[in-house]
Amino acid sequence: MPLDVYDKIMMLAKRRGFIYPSFEIYGGSAGFYDYGPLGSRLKQNIENLWRNYYLLQDNCVEINTPTITLYEVLKASGHVDEFTDITVDCKKCKQSYKVEEIIEKNISIEDAFNNDKVKCPTCSKNLKDPYPVNLMFSTKIGIEQSRDAFLRPETAQGIFTNFHLLYRYGREKLPFGVIQVGKGYRNEVSPRQGIIRLREFSMAEAEIFFDPKDKTHPNFEIVKDEKLYLFDNEKEMKISLEKSVKTGEINNQALAYYMYLTQKFLMSAGVDPKKFRFRKHASDELAHYAQECWDAELYSERFGWIECVGIADRSAYDLSSHINSSKTDMYAMRKYDKPKIMKVKKIVPKMGVLGPLFKDKAGKIQTILENMKVNDIKKIYVKINDETLEIPKDCYNVVEFEEKQIGEKFIPHVIEPSYGIDRILYCILEHNYDEIKKKGEEYRILKLNAHISPIKVGVLPLVSDSRLIKIAREIDKNLRDAGIATYYDEGGTIGRRYARMDEIGTPFCITIDHDSIENNSVTIRDRDTTKQERKKIENIIKFIRDKISK
Amino acid sequence: MPLDVYDKIMMLAKRRGFIYPSFEIYGGSAGFYDYGPLGSRLKQNIENLWRNYYLLQDNCVEINTPTITLYEVLKASGHVDEFTDITVDCKKCKQSYKVEEIIEKNISIEDAFNNDKVKCPTCSKNLKDPYPVNLMFSTKIGIEQSRDAFLRPETAQGIFTNFHLLYRYGREKLPFGVIQVGKGYRNEVSPRQGIIRLREFSMAEAEIFFDPKDKTHPNFEIVKDEKLYLFDNEKEMKISLEKSVKTGEINNQALAYYMYLTQKFLMSAGVDPKKFRFRKHASDELAHYAQECWDAELYSERFGWIECVGIADRSAYDLSSHINSSKTDMYAMRKYDKPKIMKVKKIVPKMGVLGPLFKDKAGKIQTILENMKVNDIKKIYVKINDETLEIPKDCYNVVEFEEKQIGEKFIPHVIEPSYGIDRILYCILEHNYDEIKKKGEEYRILKLNAHISPIKVGVLPLVSDSRLIKIAREIDKNLRDAGIATYYDEGGTIGRRYARMDEIGTPFCITIDHDSIENNSVTIRDRDTTKQERKKIENIIKFIRDKISK
Repeated sequence: MPLDVYDKIMMLAKRRGFIYPSFEIYGGSAGFYDYGPLGSRLKQNIENLWRNYYLLQDNCVEINTPTITLYEVLKASGHVDEFTDITVDCKKCKQSYKVEEIIEKNISIEDAFNNDKVKCPTCSKNLKDPYPVNLMFSTKIGIEQSRDAFLRPETAQGIFTNFHLLYRYGREKLPFGVIQVGKGYRNEVSPRQGIIRLREFSMAEAEIFFDPKDKTHPNFEIVKDEKLYLFDNEKEMKISLEKSVKTGEINNQALAYYMYLTQKFLMSAGVDPKKFRFRKHASDELAHYAQECWDAELYSERFGWIECVGIADRSAYDLSSHINSSKTDMYAMRKYDKPKIMKVKKIVPKMGVLGPLFKDKAGKIQTILENMKVNDIKKIYVKINDETLEIPKDCYNVVEFEEKQIGEKFIPHVIEPSYGIDRILYCILEHNYDEIKKKGEEYRILKLNAHISPIKVGVLPLVSDSRLIKIAREIDKNLRDAGIATYYDEGGTIGRRYARMDEIGTPFCITIDHDSIENNSVTIRDRDTTKQERKKIENIIKFIRDKISK
Repeated sequence: MPLDVYDKIMMLAKRRGFIYPSFEIYGGSAGFYDYGPLGSRLKQNIENLWRNYYLLQDNCVEINTPTITLYEVLKASGHVDEFTDITVDCKKCKQSYKVEEIIEKNISIEDAFNNDKVKCPTCSKNLKDPYPVNLMFSTKIGIEQSRDAFLRPETAQGIFTNFHLLYRYGREKLPFGVIQVGKGYRNEVSPRQGIIRLREFSMAEAEIFFDPKDKTHPNFEIVKDEKLYLFDNEKEMKISLEKSVKTGEINNQALAYYMYLTQKFLMSAGVDPKKFRFRKHASDELAHYAQECWDAELYSERFGWIECVGIADRSAYDLSSHINSSKTDMYAMRKYDKPKIMKVKKIVPKMGVLGPLFKDKAGKIQTILENMKVNDIKKIYVKINDETLEIPKDCYNVVEFEEKQIGEKFIPHVIEPSYGIDRILYCILEHNYDEIKKKGEEYRILKLNAHISPIKVGVLPLVSDSRLIKIAREIDKNLRDAGIATYYDEGGTIGRRYARMDEIGTPFCITIDHDSIENNSVTIRDRDTTKQERKKIENIIKFIRDKISK
């Protein structure tokens, strides 16, 4: 079987220090990869480019929260109950499978299993009894009185659980965005797609909080005529932001704006526009928290269209859940132009009645009653742990107060662009991989954008002459001191050294030759044109800086 | 009880967005903290300063490997067996304690427990039966046929298990250094020291590989006269690198050099030199992998001397372990000046005898025999899984070959500087925290070094005049576009706004006043001197850049 592009890229990636299979000396483990010296830089460059869009252009703030997350957080967020894959085990060969990967498309799970249509891909035995498996890695905090915890399935929850503190940091203004870049985890049943389906992956997420009555975006006006590439229900279209919102194709300005930011970021990172589209989630594939979701998909020869970014309207789902579960005030405030005097009904519990009736639960009931919204009260039910209690009328009075209110509380909505950095990185490698023949040999070029390339400049003394080497070393050091990543190489023919740089995507090579001694000049070779320009040594840094800035 | 500095800093940290207790809305969990918007930036600045020393000055490469680590890796590294704390549980109040934290200093564990000297700090009951507890968080990869795994206790193992690939990337030259910055985990029995004892922490580690016959460092000559602050066996000394190695106080140049680099980094990050020292590990406190180890300790008012960096000579411990366990060739090569013809004895297995005798183990035995070093052979033992087998003499021949060898193989030694970023960050806050009285009120200043501060410039229009605001907004945008972190603030008196900036350590404030409209100038206020200078708007970026670069 001839190698496909995926194989070729992963071989190059391993040989040249981009990506290594993790734990390979112990047989490896599906779903885990290491970033080598070049991969690590490439990843950082992509993440920093992403940060530029969100921190500078969109004025978000960044936080960092632990990967280990308490059970309570993920119970409230719905992940304990909903973050599952339907799985089936083969009783014969002991393999497990994610059902949606082994049943035919356009067939329901019920139909497939009720009619014996599912066979084990390994041993062909009929498979039975699919069941949901939670995909979070679990662990325990502490020893004796340990607490259940999981590795976070997304970075987002660390933002939601701090919302009240972050809202204060942002001076209580909306829209207000918070980002987090870091690890996410998903204990896949049986990952079989290499670096595309990781169990531990790098994410970059932004949670932008909006007043639900106003999902406009301050920058929308500037970009409204730009075009988005949409794919909805098998229909492709190129449509302006403004039109997409007007026609209702995209639900609101905010969603459209972050789709545009995503498109711009991906293009700048080096995605091929012909291998890019936004696909709208059908209602039955929406995550448990999402109201509307668009995926940015990138095309890969082996895997087809891959979901690399999800841009979801999570509405008030998460904050509501955490307010309900933790009883913390995580509301935002919509201020009135001037304070209003409002008539408010409040419940005043009678502890003398409540106490004997509900014993140790009375205190909790008191708190709940005091914070309850009161309109027309018929019966009051209170939920404590999982028990629902009816509170008799003689346990409280309803009293009307006058209260000065400066505004009304509400739960913000969230727009979430969530990026899978590893998948984006792989697709950038694939979209920029080029293979030609040179003197009968395979010649590989990674046409990475200069501002993304792990190494910006190869520094190459033409021959092994100590005078050239001295100059080359000095140029190399000056570039590095200026923060420009270099690769110094004096081994082999100059052609072979250019080839090594082309293969890892280095956009420029500086060659130091005997003229360099005479007149302080060098040649700078451009990877894509292979043209060489003669430049004064003192002008190198400025020349390179201009070329690699973005 | 009056607040101590720790309390004050943690309150400031929470109020202003440096550090939040994690999962606080669900009651929190000891050993976990979040970095808010300012803390996250401060942490990134510290990490990037650190990278500068190791990537630029020391020419290391950086990699990123998963936090989830296979059992096999950590079994080989010794962590499954050795990464433990002696723990004791109270049968009465169900608390667990780390024994070394609750027994008196200078008393042995045996003595303490044999003589009933240990009482529960919570309920005073006599404690009994201490036992070792492994401190790794454990989890499982996959569902049906799951594999045991842990969250990594250090980032180092991800480097060791890739050594053969990284050595090739570095063109097979030593010394050669690899760094990793990321999360480490330690399931502490009962952490009671706030942010100083985390269960999930940020580390920055460097593994520098040396030829054991040559632990010199190429940069040693340049820095040999610099002084180190050492503390060994209650004795303090200020001693040059050169002398410390000559007298044997520090075992080798490489160790001394990385201690110097550590000292330089910490001073540049803003550590108070009077609250800094290197302390040598006594032989009974060395980690299982270490031959010699120095801690960089920083002084804190509440906690005393805190270990913030460990600089260890791990010798060949880790690579030997992984070579033995994985049977992978992870040797380095010491090349001869010219190839040598050597007489080599080799074992040639007789499969006709081995096969019937050892059945399915014969293949593995064959491989082991063929790779065995042979000198004077009496009896041969082979270890397969945990079984040791004697191989009878009639199973093999010993044959002498002549072989051309280009060098000899050896296992490199490792010098490891390992940094606890969270502890360093906290100590920098404490060492730079200053409190004065202003008009009878407490006034707090964080005197962070400018290149470390999360925000570099406060941009403050003097009064709420739309013309001033327009200029201020423009200056703010230009600074941000130039990559300089700003905080725009138009709320409250100018004094209060300066105070807000001083409290978060912002080194400069730009104030836009009515003269700014007339002559395009602003005042720039210095946090530490509170002096103001008038500057032209067009010169701001260069002025600030010069001040914050390091």
